[in-house]
Amino acid sequence: MANDSIVDWQFSGNEEAKEAAGAALSAYSSKLFALCDPNGPPILPPRVETAETSHTAEKAVVYSVLCGLGNAYAPSIGLPAAKKAVAEYLNRDLPNKLTANDVFMTVGCKQAIELAVDILAKPNANVLLPRPGFPWDMVRSLYQKLEVRKYDFVPERDYEIDLESVRAQVDENTFAIFIINPHNPIGNIYSEAHLKQIAELARELKIMVVSDEVFRWTVFGSKPFVPMAKFSSIVPVVTLGSISKGWTVPGWRTGWVSLHDLDGAFRNTKVVDAAKQFLEINSKPPTVIQAAIPTILEDTPEDFFIRRQKYLKDKADYAYTFVKSIPCLTCYQKTEACTFLWTELNISCFKDIKDAEDFCEKLASEKNLVLLPGKAFGVTNWVRHSIDMDSATLQDAFGRLKSFCISHSNTGEASLEDVNGVN
Amino acid sequence: MANDSIVDWQFSGNEEAKEAAGAALSAYSSKLFALCDPNGPPILPPRVETAETSHTAEKAVVYSVLCGLGNAYAPSIGLPAAKKAVAEYLNRDLPNKLTANDVFMTVGCKQAIELAVDILAKPNANVLLPRPGFPWDMVRSLYQKLEVRKYDFVPERDYEIDLESVRAQVDENTFAIFIINPHNPIGNIYSEAHLKQIAELARELKIMVVSDEVFRWTVFGSKPFVPMAKFSSIVPVVTLGSISKGWTVPGWRTGWVSLHDLDGAFRNTKVVDAAKQFLEINSKPPTVIQAAIPTILEDTPEDFFIRRQKYLKDKADYAYTFVKSIPCLTCYQKTEACTFLWTELNISCFKDIKDAEDFCEKLASEKNLVLLPGKAFGVTNWVRHSIDMDSATLQDAFGRLKSFCISHSNTGEASLEDVNGVN
Repeated sequence: MANDSIVDWQFSGNEEAKEAAGAALSAYSSKLFALCDPNGPPILPPRVETAETSHTAEKAVVYSVLCGLGNAYAPSIGLPAAKKAVAEYLNRDLPNKLTANDVFMTVGCKQAIELAVDILAKPNANVLLPRPGFPWDMVRSLYQKLEVRKYDFVPERDYEIDLESVRAQVDENTFAIFIINPHNPIGNIYSEAHLKQIAELARELKIMVVSDEVFRWTVFGSKPFVPMAKFSSIVPVVTLGSISKGWTVPGWRTGWVSLHDLDGAFRNTKVVDAAKQFLEINSKPPTVIQAAIPTILEDTPEDFFIRRQKYLKDKADYAYTFVKSIPCLTCYQKTEACTFLWTELNISCFKDIKDAEDFCEKLASEKNLVLLPGKAFGVTNWVRHSIDMDSATLQDAFGRLKSFCISHSNTGEASLEDVNGVN
Repeated sequence: MANDSIVDWQFSGNEEAKEAAGAALSAYSSKLFALCDPNGPPILPPRVETAETSHTAEKAVVYSVLCGLGNAYAPSIGLPAAKKAVAEYLNRDLPNKLTANDVFMTVGCKQAIELAVDILAKPNANVLLPRPGFPWDMVRSLYQKLEVRKYDFVPERDYEIDLESVRAQVDENTFAIFIINPHNPIGNIYSEAHLKQIAELARELKIMVVSDEVFRWTVFGSKPFVPMAKFSSIVPVVTLGSISKGWTVPGWRTGWVSLHDLDGAFRNTKVVDAAKQFLEINSKPPTVIQAAIPTILEDTPEDFFIRRQKYLKDKADYAYTFVKSIPCLTCYQKTEACTFLWTELNISCFKDIKDAEDFCEKLASEKNLVLLPGKAFGVTNWVRHSIDMDSATLQDAFGRLKSFCISHSNTGEASLEDVNGVN
C-alpha cells in the first residue's frame, strides 16, 4: 500500500548545529583524510592509534568490568569515588583544597568545556577565547550563540597571554576568560607568575577563569606545570581535565570539571546549580571507567609519565630542528608540552598555494600527510603538525612535508636559507 | 591581596536546564533515596547494582581494553565496525535492510532520544509523546522548548495506543510520534498488527515514527517483540536502541540510532545531515565499548536472554499476584516486558496520603523503599515498582509495601477485599 504515492512529510532536520559542526576539528580532519589515497603510502598521522596506555589503567578497567563495578548508572554528577579521587589528585598542587562535592565527572574534557560554556551562556553575554585555541570552545560557543571575543599572545614573551588584549575586549557582558594550559596548539605552558597576573586581571575585571588543563601530564620543557587553581584565592577558577591525553585514552571518554569557589562566588551565582542541572539532562561518562578512576589516578607510576614526556621531547626536538630545513615554514616556539608543532606558512614563498587550507588539501592529496590548517584554531596561515608517532614514522612524515614544500616553493631548494627565517 | 573586598562578579549560572532537569527520573529518585534512612533496613531497590551481564560482553570489553582497540577517538558518527554490527543485528528482523551508513552510535539510548528530539526541534513544532511514558523524551522536549502533546492508551485492548487520541492531537506542526515498545512503565508490547496500524496512521498524518526499543531483549509474555521498522516501507522510522537493558549495562553508555529511510525521506529532508551535525558537536560513546559491540551483538548466547527473561517473568508473576493482597493498589496489566510493575493508587482509600508523590515520600521515609511516582511519567496517582531483584529481596520489598499500605489505609486489613478491585 505504501510506495504508490509521494508523501509530503511534515518533518525536516533543523540546521541548529550546522555552523558549530563545521567548526569542529573533526570536520577539518575528516575532509583531509578523505583526500588521501588509501592505496598510496601509509596515511600519516595514523588515524586510529594512540600510544600505549599505562598497564595500571588497563588493569583498573579490566577489574571494573570483571567485577561489575561500573555496570549500573552512576549519579548524574559522577560516581562518588571518582569525584573524591579527582579532588584528592588535584589537591596535591593546591593550597585551597577541593572536596568531592566540588568535582563533577564529564564525558571527556570536551563535555567539561561544553558544561562551562552552556551553563554560563546568556543573551548578550560574551566570552574570551584564545587566538589560536582548541576549537571545541568555539564550537560550543557558536552552538550557544554566544558572542566570542579573542585575545592574543605575545610571541616575544614565550607566547604568554597578551593581557592588554584581554583588557581591551572585556565589557560588562563578559563572564569568563578561557585559557588552555598547556596550550593547544602552540605547545607552551604558563609560568606561576603569569598565572598570578591572569588571576589578578580577571579579579579586577570581575570575570572567572576557566582553565583547560587536559595536557598537564605531557610537559617536557624547562618550566613545571602550575594549575590555575593555585590562585583560586584571588579569582574563582573552573578547571577542566580528563584522562584522555595524560593516559592516551581519549576513547575512554572520561573527564571532569572542578569548581574552585572563592568565597562562595559559584554557589551564590547559581553556577553550582546550573552545573548540576546541565549534568542531569546531558550524557554521562561511562560508569565502568569512572569506577577505575581512583586506581588510575592514585596508582599509575610516575615512570609512565616520565617515559611519555621523554618520548615526546625527542619528537619535538627532532621536528623543531628539521623544520628549519624546510622552505616556507617557520616554527617560532619550540614546543614544551602537548603533542604538536605549530608553524607559520610564508604563503608568498609558494608558487601555487593560496592559503593554509589549500596547503593542507594539496599535502593530503599529494603526500598522504594530514596537517590541520590554522583556520581550525581561529587563525590564517598556520598549520598544526602531530609529532606523536615513533621516530621512523615522524621522519617519514617530515620528509614528505619537506619534499612537498620544496616542490611547491617559488625557488626550489636553492634559496632555502633565504626563505626560512629561523636558523 | 584577594579576600579583602567583596567582588560583584559578572557571571551567573543560567536556568536553561532547570525545568528539564526537574523532570528527569533521577530528580525524583534522588529525592526519594535521600529520604531513606541509611541506618535502617536495606534500602530497596539496591541503587547501584544490576543483574550480572553476559560473560561474552565482559570478555569482549576486556579484550578491547587489553589490546588497546578503543583507546583512540572514534569518528563522531561511531566506529565503523560497531555501526555495521548494529545494522546486521537489526536486519535479522527486517525486510528492508539497513547498511552501516544508516546507523549512528550514541551515548546510551538517552542520547539517541536526545538526538531524535534535538535535530527535529523547530519553533512552533510539536511532538506526540505517550502518557504515561519514559520521562527522557519529555526532558529533552522541555529543554528544546518543544510543544509536547500526549496520546493515551486503551486499557481494554492490552494498553494499545489510542489511535483516535493520536489523530486528535496532530496538526500541521507535528513532526513525529514517539512510541516506546516494549513500553516503560506499563510493561506491555505491541502486536505486529498494531504496529502496522500505527505505521499507516503516521503515513496518513505525514509524520515519522520514533521507536524506543531499548527493552526489546526483556520480553517474557505471550507476544513476540516486533520492531517498528518492519513497517518502514509504509512510514519513515527512527529506531532507538542500546545494550543498556538487554545486557544490564547502562553504565557502559553505548546505544544507537538507526534511520529506516523510506524513499529517501530522511535524506531529502536533511534529517541525515542534522543527525551527523548533532553528533559532531555532542558527546560520544566510549570507543572502548564500541569496539566490543560486534562481539557483544553477534556472540552473546541466546541462553543469556532466555535465563534473564525467565528470571523477570518469575518476578513479574510474583509481584502481580502479591499486589492483589495489598489494599489501595490496583495492577491492571500483567507486565510482559521490561523490569517494572505499574499500579494505580486508590487515593480515597488512604487515610493520610494526598497523592502519589506523598505516597512515595512517606514510603521511602518509613520503609526505606523507593517507588517512582506517576508524575515522573506524566500521570497522577500511579506508581512504578522495580521488580528486578532476587526473590527474597522482592518479597521483602513487597512485604514492606503491603505493611505500609495497610497502616495508611482507611480501614486497615479488614476490608482488604473490598478496596482492591482486581481479585
